[in-house]
Amino acid sequence: MGALRLPCLTSIVSVSSARSSLFPRGRSSHLLNVRKLSSTAKVEVAPAVQEQGITPRSQDFNAWYLDVISMAELADYGPVRGTMVIRPYGYAIWEAIQDYLNIKFKESGHSNMYFPQFIPYSFIEKEASHVEGFSPELALVTVGGGKELEEKLVVRPTSETIVNHMFTQWIHSYRDLPLMINQWVNVTRWEMRTKPFIRTLEFLWQEGHTAHATPEEAEREAMQMIDVYTKFAYEQAAIPVIPGRKSRVETFAGADRTYTIEAMMGDRKALQAGTSHNLGQNFSRAFGTQFADENGQRQHVWQTSWAISTRFVGGIIMTHGDDAGLMLPPRLASIQVVIVPIWKKANEKDEVLDDALSVKDVLHSAGIKVKLDDSDQRTPGWKFNFWEMKGVPLRIEIGPRDVSSKSVVISRRDIPGKPGKVFGISMESSVLVPYVKEKLDEIQSSLLDKAIAFRDSNIVDVSSYDELKEAISQGKWARGPWVGSDEDELKVKEETGATIRCFPFDQPQGPKTCLMTGSPAEEVAIFAKSY
Amino acid sequence: MGALRLPCLTSIVSVSSARSSLFPRGRSSHLLNVRKLSSTAKVEVAPAVQEQGITPRSQDFNAWYLDVISMAELADYGPVRGTMVIRPYGYAIWEAIQDYLNIKFKESGHSNMYFPQFIPYSFIEKEASHVEGFSPELALVTVGGGKELEEKLVVRPTSETIVNHMFTQWIHSYRDLPLMINQWVNVTRWEMRTKPFIRTLEFLWQEGHTAHATPEEAEREAMQMIDVYTKFAYEQAAIPVIPGRKSRVETFAGADRTYTIEAMMGDRKALQAGTSHNLGQNFSRAFGTQFADENGQRQHVWQTSWAISTRFVGGIIMTHGDDAGLMLPPRLASIQVVIVPIWKKANEKDEVLDDALSVKDVLHSAGIKVKLDDSDQRTPGWKFNFWEMKGVPLRIEIGPRDVSSKSVVISRRDIPGKPGKVFGISMESSVLVPYVKEKLDEIQSSLLDKAIAFRDSNIVDVSSYDELKEAISQGKWARGPWVGSDEDELKVKEETGATIRCFPFDQPQGPKTCLMTGSPAEEVAIFAKSY
Repeated sequence: MGALRLPCLTSIVSVSSARSSLFPRGRSSHLLNVRKLSSTAKVEVAPAVQEQGITPRSQDFNAWYLDVISMAELADYGPVRGTMVIRPYGYAIWEAIQDYLNIKFKESGHSNMYFPQFIPYSFIEKEASHVEGFSPELALVTVGGGKELEEKLVVRPTSETIVNHMFTQWIHSYRDLPLMINQWVNVTRWEMRTKPFIRTLEFLWQEGHTAHATPEEAEREAMQMIDVYTKFAYEQAAIPVIPGRKSRVETFAGADRTYTIEAMMGDRKALQAGTSHNLGQNFSRAFGTQFADENGQRQHVWQTSWAISTRFVGGIIMTHGDDAGLMLPPRLASIQVVIVPIWKKANEKDEVLDDALSVKDVLHSAGIKVKLDDSDQRTPGWKFNFWEMKGVPLRIEIGPRDVSSKSVVISRRDIPGKPGKVFGISMESSVLVPYVKEKLDEIQSSLLDKAIAFRDSNIVDVSSYDELKEAISQGKWARGPWVGSDEDELKVKEETGATIRCFPFDQPQGPKTCLMTGSPAEEVAIFAKSY
Repeated sequence: MGALRLPCLTSIVSVSSARSSLFPRGRSSHLLNVRKLSSTAKVEVAPAVQEQGITPRSQDFNAWYLDVISMAELADYGPVRGTMVIRPYGYAIWEAIQDYLNIKFKESGHSNMYFPQFIPYSFIEKEASHVEGFSPELALVTVGGGKELEEKLVVRPTSETIVNHMFTQWIHSYRDLPLMINQWVNVTRWEMRTKPFIRTLEFLWQEGHTAHATPEEAEREAMQMIDVYTKFAYEQAAIPVIPGRKSRVETFAGADRTYTIEAMMGDRKALQAGTSHNLGQNFSRAFGTQFADENGQRQHVWQTSWAISTRFVGGIIMTHGDDAGLMLPPRLASIQVVIVPIWKKANEKDEVLDDALSVKDVLHSAGIKVKLDDSDQRTPGWKFNFWEMKGVPLRIEIGPRDVSSKSVVISRRDIPGKPGKVFGISMESSVLVPYVKEKLDEIQSSLLDKAIAFRDSNIVDVSSYDELKEAISQGKWARGPWVGSDEDELKVKEETGATIRCFPFDQPQGPKTCLMTGSPAEEVAIFAKSY
């Protein structure tokens, strides 16, 4: 259990080599041919370094994922086993997620606040299924200020217990309800098998907590928040998640019902990308959180909690990335457009940079997130590859000929090579700005369409357990009618490695027969292997 | 050391009584007289409750401070000794601080990121003065996932050590410099004597960390950031801090020089409200953080770190608050204007609420943070007091007569009673919006001017130790020439309770003689008792 055990990313792919080897195979020569850049004579890349690009996604999805995280400088391992340092380029994605969700949370009546991260151990034990679910994963503070503590403290794995402890003091009558809050914080779960962004010892998330006077209101809230997450995933992250209800087996420790959004990654494994729990009265009974209703009767409040975490960043990488690296949906990209100036002779440099700067200003003024890469340490070819690998949606190239014609060349990250490239777009603000905005929108839609097509072509409707096993063994998701028992569900997991990801909200009409038991079924469930 | 020991705020002033007793003495009747509101007949406040207002500031500053925090619902104690729950109204002040500083940090080239909070214990021991300064305050995780850890983990009290561990992996050549990052996180220091916002076991802050190629650059950065803090304090928080350099005794554990902003609270105690450290090469030597300079020579980087925390919220409360409660500077107020509609008869209600709503919309559209308190649970008089206690800078009253004249009544929080009240301001957007904006600006300036006057009238220039002792015993700050030794400084602390707050940047001209030693002195120092 000691710290400092596992090799860190920087030892798998050392940072110094990552920094000098950002030269994915194949694409650079292709792009250079298109522009026939004589300036590529400057590329000082040794053959050995050229070969150390990103592992192709098709070859080894996991190695590709770790390479992208390292080379795009999204994250690095921390010194303690299973912890992660989120680097600025990765953190910017999280900030974009926060910016969007914060507005949605506040619009729907939630306020941000902060609960302490240290929770008395006794709190965790109060809700029976909660302690069962979380006790194996706890980090405990046992020493403070040089002395052994009388009661050990849990570093929050989630905050339902401490939230209810406080709600009990704040809620008195129906006038205090609904109480709807959120916090953006770090949480700790002592996971044995970790993976950057997807499962780490410590991660960042938001956790919403609400208390209501009626079960109907709590249910409405839980559904509303999974809907906020679903819209966010589709519209901002271009991830076509499937929203639905978790099975009893997969329900959150302490919840009556858990709603989830399930995303299909590029390797077709499922990622639980956000959850919303109807907690019923489980925590309010455990903590005595009561209110006086309009008739003066004491009742326990009805509660929800819901969360999205930095895991979502991993979901974005694994949904859209390709062999060349990261591919960011424009709405979450901290750099939407990169400008690469190109000059051959010294006397061309000034006029090219002048125009590059003015194009940057034009786009910046229009609210587009733009970066000008004007360093002369690297060749244009190197920069093309670098910013492709970083997933920047659009690249603008400006060379001496473009300066003469007052136009630019624009390349889409999502369409490699010539088909994604357009020459002669005027630098004129009235032309360039709408063009760039339109292209960003097109990329945003196109990423979503592509992800939907991929998802739909990898979900198989099954009507028997044999068909389910066949689909799972092909790496696909299986969708079929289900009224099996918890034991049936665990049997599927043992025999196939797949779990029920959800009973999707979107259900087919008509009579159904359970694929396992042959009994009449009301719903289909989706089975898949998952992260 | 056990948890759950100290009484929490809610037991000192129970939440239920706080909720129903928001009726500070004195002011309500005064205000009610002005408007002669017959609707106050509805006030259902029992005499016992009326008497349980906020302790007057002049009577007991500390009790007043805790009352304000409780009744304005800024914070509550957490279940673990010394921890704090930051409630939505208090957290909104922190969010306003974050919003402003985040922009300034990014404008000056810093990126946000995230470092893990668990630090191997061995890291803390690497920098000699750092471990000496922090080891008495550490919280230690010794158990993870049910097992005793091989190496205990420190819950970050600050992040210099882990930052340097990572910087060492990321920095290779001068091209990687400057490296300038920031993180907004929670930190833990096992303090024995705690006070909400001012000193808590866990608090929120931002910590900036930078690495540079030269000592001059690091010094410039440290100075630039204390300047950002100073401007923030003056322009946003209306707190006239005194920026300066800490004495050797008060310098951060591991820094060469610490710059500080020192604020005078309403009880004339000093609050260290933000610090910026020039770390020199102390951490880079301890962690081997080196770069190859332009000649290929390996050198240790020069570093800074700087922080502002939730303590600043306490500073705002203790600078501007008065007997009636909180007083928020308009630029940091989450509610800048509260609208209180007033009606006597049921048939007046609709037209009053209609106009109140349209005034709200007009102000909201103009970017003013406005709240309409249209509940009919409470009387207007109760609402006046409640929102004054919450420190809302401006109140707009709209009654039936105002509806007839299409005008409103506007009251300033910072000028009690009639002098702060103006009748007959047109509801017309072209009149109302500029008027409200001007008043908010006036309040912002006025709070600063008042705080400057208070500060200046409580700083005494001293030329001998006797004069210093006299000033401190009167509760004032003493400013005098100083070249005393560390021992001299500690003697002052022991004998007077005062410490050197800083050598202010703003220094008087001319020759000076040390107040303690009589030797020629180059600088004056400011001595004060502090939080």
